[in-house]
Amino acid sequence: MNQQRIVTLLTDFGLSDIYVGVMKGVIAGINSTLKVIDLTHEIPPQNLIAARFCLMNAVSYFPQDTVHIAVVDPGVGSNRKGIAIKFADGFLVGPDNGLFSGILSQSPVISAVELTNSNYWRTNSPSTTFHGRDIFAAVGAHLASGVSFEDLGRVIDPESLVKLPMAECREKEGILEGCIQYIDRFGNLITNIPGNLVIGNSWTVEIAQVNIPGKRTYSDIPIGSLIALVGSHGWVEIAVNHGNAQLKLQLNYGDKIKVLLS
Amino acid sequence: MNQQRIVTLLTDFGLSDIYVGVMKGVIAGINSTLKVIDLTHEIPPQNLIAARFCLMNAVSYFPQDTVHIAVVDPGVGSNRKGIAIKFADGFLVGPDNGLFSGILSQSPVISAVELTNSNYWRTNSPSTTFHGRDIFAAVGAHLASGVSFEDLGRVIDPESLVKLPMAECREKEGILEGCIQYIDRFGNLITNIPGNLVIGNSWTVEIAQVNIPGKRTYSDIPIGSLIALVGSHGWVEIAVNHGNAQLKLQLNYGDKIKVLLS
Amino acid sequence: MNQQRIVTLLTDFGLSDIYVGVMKGVIAGINSTLKVIDLTHEIPPQNLIAARFCLMNAVSYFPQDTVHIAVVDPGVGSNRKGIAIKFADGFLVGPDNGLFSGILSQSPVISAVELTNSNYWRTNSPSTTFHGRDIFAAVGAHLASGVSFEDLGRVIDPESLVKLPMAECREKEGILEGCIQYIDRFGNLITNIPGNLVIGNSWTVEIAQVNIPGKRTYSDIPIGSLIALVGSHGWVEIAVNHGNAQLKLQLNYGDKIKVLLS
Repeated sequence: MNQQRIVTLLTDFGLSDIYVGVMKGVIAGINSTLKVIDLTHEIPPQNLIAARFCLMNAVSYFPQDTVHIAVVDPGVGSNRKGIAIKFADGFLVGPDNGLFSGILSQSPVISAVELTNSNYWRTNSPSTTFHGRDIFAAVGAHLASGVSFEDLGRVIDPESLVKLPMAECREKEGILEGCIQYIDRFGNLITNIPGNLVIGNSWTVEIAQVNIPGKRTYSDIPIGSLIALVGSHGWVEIAVNHGNAQLKLQLNYGDKIKVLLS
Repeated sequence: MNQQRIVTLLTDFGLSDIYVGVMKGVIAGINSTLKVIDLTHEIPPQNLIAARFCLMNAVSYFPQDTVHIAVVDPGVGSNRKGIAIKFADGFLVGPDNGLFSGILSQSPVISAVELTNSNYWRTNSPSTTFHGRDIFAAVGAHLASGVSFEDLGRVIDPESLVKLPMAECREKEGILEGCIQYIDRFGNLITNIPGNLVIGNSWTVEIAQVNIPGKRTYSDIPIGSLIALVGSHGWVEIAVNHGNAQLKLQLNYGDKIKVLLS
Repeated sequence: MNQQRIVTLLTDFGLSDIYVGVMKGVIAGINSTLKVIDLTHEIPPQNLIAARFCLMNAVSYFPQDTVHIAVVDPGVGSNRKGIAIKFADGFLVGPDNGLFSGILSQSPVISAVELTNSNYWRTNSPSTTFHGRDIFAAVGAHLASGVSFEDLGRVIDPESLVKLPMAECREKEGILEGCIQYIDRFGNLITNIPGNLVIGNSWTVEIAQVNIPGKRTYSDIPIGSLIALVGSHGWVEIAVNHGNAQLKLQLNYGDKIKVLLS
């Protein structure tokens, strides 16, 4: 059997309207054999930090020639660029607003273009509010169908790409300082502290005046208890066994966290 | 590469139960090579006006031989007809309750049949509450697999199809009068006033004792402000930049709106 | 046309995070021609009773060689087994926690294995919190791609599989006693009383001090009224025409119900 090329979609459009469905219609109209996989469409509206996190943690699970289309786009209709990026694990298509800066912190840009070639758009007169449909879906479908990357537009300097301002994880005298970079639907608080900095050590999280011992998995603690562990994405994460850590600790995106190694 | 035939689904079933999944199982059992695309399954329960809007604005983004199956079906189990319609952009399958009247106001019926041929149903004894699974999914899959349209049942007069009662957009002395025909998950209020009546003019929306100047795109106004613009569906739309116009204005489906041209 | 093998997914991961998307990435990386169908990802977190119900009522609508991957997995990281089961209608892959006991009450196990062969996992060092991605998705994709069932691991005795404790439906002197086994998003209360015990009889439901006459379909009663009927899943079900029976009756999972036959 022939393999199918993969296109992923990540947006903040939700699933209650037809926005995502028509993007898939545009893709199918260009090449109905592409396999489209939803990463998620429930990014909190215009939350670039959440979108950056989700993309950064998803791409490595996909085949290497996958085209990832991401549309969280508060600047649509302004002069922000539309871009495509070639990196080691595939291709990225979307607005130049920092969405991709998490991925690129882990995997360098091979090449980047501004999407100036309207031959690969759905229309020469794209909507001023829905580039996801009129530019990014169409460009992504063409790219996944074999159009040459360089043909999509003007080559740009990777250094010129917009980066999101993000607190970084720092280490000082056995203490790791970081922040919450994502909150999932279970209320798990995912930090920006890489799990490999704690694995093999004995460690404790200090957050919101609470100390939480680092453990290996949920079954190590009673139901209802707070746990710190290295989550499935590879980051230090605070959770409640069968419960919701965000509600229990009343914390939010960007809140500070410390890890004490001993 | 072989192209794949497209079937779309639009329902009010939501995604928390298995209703949509089993419809896809029925389709795959008939022809596993069909590509099924979800338009949305989050139509507010039994809201035919919302379903009509979503279908009308989605079908033109799909390949021309697409089969659109729509199931918002408050009359299931009564004597309302099951129908299939052939129109310029593809095929429609679902209950005869006005769901398709938005599409048909833009694109005339080529042919219509009542789904009387149970050879193309999943079973001779369909559930009285789930024709989406037992009739419409199965008929749509057969149609997309090459069964002849006329073979699906008895030909009926297109004039006999049910139409939804809807306030129309009217023009009087430079004032356009319409109503809200859809509210999306961002709280954007989408009217039934076509964008081409305002584009190129200077215009103002009057709604709920508020005047809102017509603009081109979000970046033309400050965050938190009300904006009237021609939305991505091509209709006059009221939004709040980074906010929710429905909550701000406390408006709902059917509420009246005026556009003043100058 | 070549048929495509089907893999279904059922989880409690929701769609707001990337958990489901990366499972699909893992599957596509193993075999991009597999067709993945979502049963639902909105099982209430860790609600095995709801998951058992959804699986039991979905599998018969899928082709017979379908691989059903189910991940509602409160015991992940503990010593609960990962299993695959061969039964008359296909294959089941997931944790050994009773998820599959509804299906197996209707269709006997042909063969069962514990997933001990890590060659078919995504990695030799699976996450302690996300076997859905690292074991079950990968194993399911390999199985659907032709890997032999017995190669997945150690054969185990079907009698050793975990069963969920569930109240059963009992009949005594013309009265059927059962309980609510599922509540759908419309607030319909689905009992564990099989519809074939009431069809052809005149019958009344007694629940929460209310008597509700058994009917055939929604159009038999006024809007807003309570109705008992045999639902599309084949079970006795209590609903409100255009309304929400759970809210109206204030009932929940496991609550008792009687059916009086006459």
